Amino acid sequence: MRASQLYAPTLRETPAEAEVISHQLMLRAGFIRKAAGGIYSYLPLAWRVLRKIENIVREEMDAKGGQELFMPVIQPAEMWMETGRWSVYGDEMFRLKDRHNRDFCLGPTHEEMITTLVRGDVRSYRQLPLRLYQIQNKYRDEIRPRFGLMRGREFIMKDLYSFDKDEAGLDESYDKMYDAYTKIFSRCGLTFRAVEADSGAIGGSGSHEFMVIADSGEAAIVYCPSCEYTANVEKAELHPIIHADEELLPLTITDTPGTKTIAAVSKYLGVAPARTIKTLAYITDGEQLIFALVRGDHEVNEIKLLNKLKCLRIDLATEDVITRITGSTVGYLGPVGVQNSEKVAIVADHSVMNMYNAVCGANQPERHYINVNPKRDFSPFLVADIRLIRENDPCPRCGIKVKTTRGIEVGQVFKLYTKYSKALQATFIDENGIEKPMVMGCYGVGVSRTMAAAIEQNYDENGIIWPVPIAPYQAVVVPVNAKDEAQMSLAEKIYSELNGNSIETVLDDRNERPGVKFKDADLIGYPLRITVGPKALSEGLIEVKIRRTGETSFFKAEDYIGSITQLMSGL
Amino acid sequence: MRASQLYAPTLRETPAEAEVISHQLMLRAGFIRKAAGGIYSYLPLAWRVLRKIENIVREEMDAKGGQELFMPVIQPAEMWMETGRWSVYGDEMFRLKDRHNRDFCLGPTHEEMITTLVRGDVRSYRQLPLRLYQIQNKYRDEIRPRFGLMRGREFIMKDLYSFDKDEAGLDESYDKMYDAYTKIFSRCGLTFRAVEADSGAIGGSGSHEFMVIADSGEAAIVYCPSCEYTANVEKAELHPIIHADEELLPLTITDTPGTKTIAAVSKYLGVAPARTIKTLAYITDGEQLIFALVRGDHEVNEIKLLNKLKCLRIDLATEDVITRITGSTVGYLGPVGVQNSEKVAIVADHSVMNMYNAVCGANQPERHYINVNPKRDFSPFLVADIRLIRENDPCPRCGIKVKTTRGIEVGQVFKLYTKYSKALQATFIDENGIEKPMVMGCYGVGVSRTMAAAIEQNYDENGIIWPVPIAPYQAVVVPVNAKDEAQMSLAEKIYSELNGNSIETVLDDRNERPGVKFKDADLIGYPLRITVGPKALSEGLIEVKIRRTGETSFFKAEDYIGSITQLMSGL
Repeated sequence: MRASQLYAPTLRETPAEAEVISHQLMLRAGFIRKAAGGIYSYLPLAWRVLRKIENIVREEMDAKGGQELFMPVIQPAEMWMETGRWSVYGDEMFRLKDRHNRDFCLGPTHEEMITTLVRGDVRSYRQLPLRLYQIQNKYRDEIRPRFGLMRGREFIMKDLYSFDKDEAGLDESYDKMYDAYTKIFSRCGLTFRAVEADSGAIGGSGSHEFMVIADSGEAAIVYCPSCEYTANVEKAELHPIIHADEELLPLTITDTPGTKTIAAVSKYLGVAPARTIKTLAYITDGEQLIFALVRGDHEVNEIKLLNKLKCLRIDLATEDVITRITGSTVGYLGPVGVQNSEKVAIVADHSVMNMYNAVCGANQPERHYINVNPKRDFSPFLVADIRLIRENDPCPRCGIKVKTTRGIEVGQVFKLYTKYSKALQATFIDENGIEKPMVMGCYGVGVSRTMAAAIEQNYDENGIIWPVPIAPYQAVVVPVNAKDEAQMSLAEKIYSELNGNSIETVLDDRNERPGVKFKDADLIGYPLRITVGPKALSEGLIEVKIRRTGETSFFKAEDYIGSITQLMSGL
Repeated sequence: MRASQLYAPTLRETPAEAEVISHQLMLRAGFIRKAAGGIYSYLPLAWRVLRKIENIVREEMDAKGGQELFMPVIQPAEMWMETGRWSVYGDEMFRLKDRHNRDFCLGPTHEEMITTLVRGDVRSYRQLPLRLYQIQNKYRDEIRPRFGLMRGREFIMKDLYSFDKDEAGLDESYDKMYDAYTKIFSRCGLTFRAVEADSGAIGGSGSHEFMVIADSGEAAIVYCPSCEYTANVEKAELHPIIHADEELLPLTITDTPGTKTIAAVSKYLGVAPARTIKTLAYITDGEQLIFALVRGDHEVNEIKLLNKLKCLRIDLATEDVITRITGSTVGYLGPVGVQNSEKVAIVADHSVMNMYNAVCGANQPERHYINVNPKRDFSPFLVADIRLIRENDPCPRCGIKVKTTRGIEVGQVFKLYTKYSKALQATFIDENGIEKPMVMGCYGVGVSRTMAAAIEQNYDENGIIWPVPIAPYQAVVVPVNAKDEAQMSLAEKIYSELNGNSIETVLDDRNERPGVKFKDADLIGYPLRITVGPKALSEGLIEVKIRRTGETSFFKAEDYIGSITQLMSGL
């Protein structure tokens, strides 16, 4: 491809609308253009990247027995009503009516569609397992689409659905997909982690998220530098911290003026935060007030708390509510003297129960208890793991101190079990002639999101740095002076030889200053730049610059192709 | 791929809903399943065919300087309002609102989108020509979707748009696309014709339709067996037929009881239909009554008549209207004595004006004129080519008798000129610094329709007969008895060797009776069937049956791969 013909309109300025680096760089480098909020055109360079990602995904799906098909984007409402998700999805679903006033949606996902399809044609265990997938546009009417392709309203997904005759089969399908995903993101040249995830609203349980590691990631991840443990911080389990035994001192109340925070009371009493008990008051959807207790230096993990309480939602209680139910004041809450009832209940983190002679609020303004000893001085309704993991907490698997990082979710694997097959009567007859619901899994890759995540992980102040396997082109040949016939002729020769050797190359034949061409090469992010200037001609050396490192090599004209191939294999 | 794992659920019965053969066979052979009226899932076999067609299309587009991109399916209403098509498209357009109540449509086509895209980034003649294309779902809310994939509401199209600086550039783009389309349908293994087409509602002028020849085609085509002339019958031009000179006899009125039709009056008077004048009465949108005259053995081409009258619509006039305006009766209409006015006007086909001593209705019940001579006895308001071409009419180019056939439109190339670039202000600065609108063309291939058309052209009573280049697999290996170890082992060997030699092969390893497997092989339409039975084992000969001809060959085990490759190259 010649740059003079390539439709990659680069911009000198960063558009004001773009908040994140991938969005900024894709606009500037001529990869995407906005059509409406969260809706983009993929220009030729982006489309090449997407097709490379798609091909990697496709090969790995096929390698695991996946069969590609293509289901409708517009889906009739009826099947969504059968599973109850027509109402659950709310405003996030794009809905429309046809000319006969029938309801349709633009598929945000395809569980209903594929389960309906398979139930019509699969009757026997002999037809299982089935692993069916597609790569296509998905739709989600985000209330605030932003971050370019990171949170769009129209985006490209690969979604595979597995149908097995039992849970052992599902486990096998799940493991195959887990393995395929590991290969996919490795082959894309990305640094990523598979994270134990909360399975969330889509249903089922047993799930991993595949996260591309990037500082701008919206998800906090904890991982163990020693064992394989990796988890979303919202999900990460924790073992109780065991404190050394101490003699139990008598419970005492004391004045602590102006000490509404843990920091303040620690300072006032001269005790470490780890020796205080933090009490947070939540109100559940059942109108019960919850006193959630964690150690003063810990944080409550609200998702864990929600799950442990088996509630639909919890919210921090307002001062009004707290005062009405307990007569106490925010800032001085504590468990001592609280009786568990339908109105109020104490939930304590495991680590709290191992504390000795601790400090906690006295449910009176400006006063705390000291020498509080759990069990002796208060009785929780529930003791559970309700705290948020932190950097340097012990790994729940091996005890080594964990580390934290941030990631962008690019894939997720789910065990759905029989949630959809039961709702939609997708059954089969097993070996013994018994009718059973199929056991399902679903497995998604955000294809367009992976492109954006690759940039969030691989860029510098000059532009994108594409990993070789998903680069739109692998190299660009830049004649310093396009009007110099000898330079152009050598550049043409190199351009043609590289393409002839399966190195996808662009020739920047534009009549622009070298600085403009170099800037565009860096911005677009070709892994290699081959510069053809006067020196190259006089000395017979081909100058090759590696985009990622900035390193420049000179290869002899006789065997530069072999040298470049070798160089690329190491990138 | 093993048939035991392949998701291709075949049906023994033809579903009642399927009216045309491609629809019936794709349902029966497990290629598609209906999700809603005109909305289908493409199962793995269909998806393989579609991807092969797509790849052929892609290669030919790229060969002509096409650059692939991918535009949104959901398009904001504003750009459609700028061109006025938001209202023009009517109920055929799927429309929806997002959560913020903004209007969108599901793209039926992308002129507005691509023109808006290009106008934002192209400023100079140096950036032209541009040829940008995509392959994606398109949407049309047909009032009565039918014929399976032939007239769906969600379907796959390739659409390329060309942007040139002048009409000479457009001509070049158009010619390149015409050539690409010829290559595409040839490479798909289809018999087709490029037809001069009426450009219709999409706008512009200068257009060819690419028609796959099939008896079930909805379009009537006329072509010359001698020269290259091919046209849609609606568009085919005709030269006037010249009759030999005759002496003009005196106009005479005569009783012709019970002769409301040309056939009846011909018989009654004993003259050939070619010596009678047929008069049809139309009413225009301007409420003018038109007496359209063609020779008695000809038919009026209403589209030509409409275009010649420059009307928006014409309808056959009701008896009431005719009687009210002319006092005459249907069945006995004629031009003699009719004065052209705002209320009524005569339009005659060229050939009518060359007739001598003809017969026509006398505008009185049960009476005709004989010895009618145009010009002497009546004066048309307009003489024009308004008749429908028939088989054996002289070719308008070379005069040889034309033939007719039927076709399915699978592609269309259009010159749009500046219709959209003017409406959307997509301008550029030319070599002289002058701002001009870009000159555009658009070029579509119905990808999913091509698959259906291929079946309409290639099938027999047993099923589909795929052309090799777009067959989902090229061969199937059928062990007669899957429980026979020696047979299965030979079948496995052949299966693996064929795939190893790039012959895409299915192994029918199902534990089914041979009859079932042969029936499925014919139904699915693999070009070659390799049968492995006891005879193959004992005699060392591989049996290969050609699906299209039913011809069976036996190849020696030592070199059967070469023989099969050779056989396939001739299919």
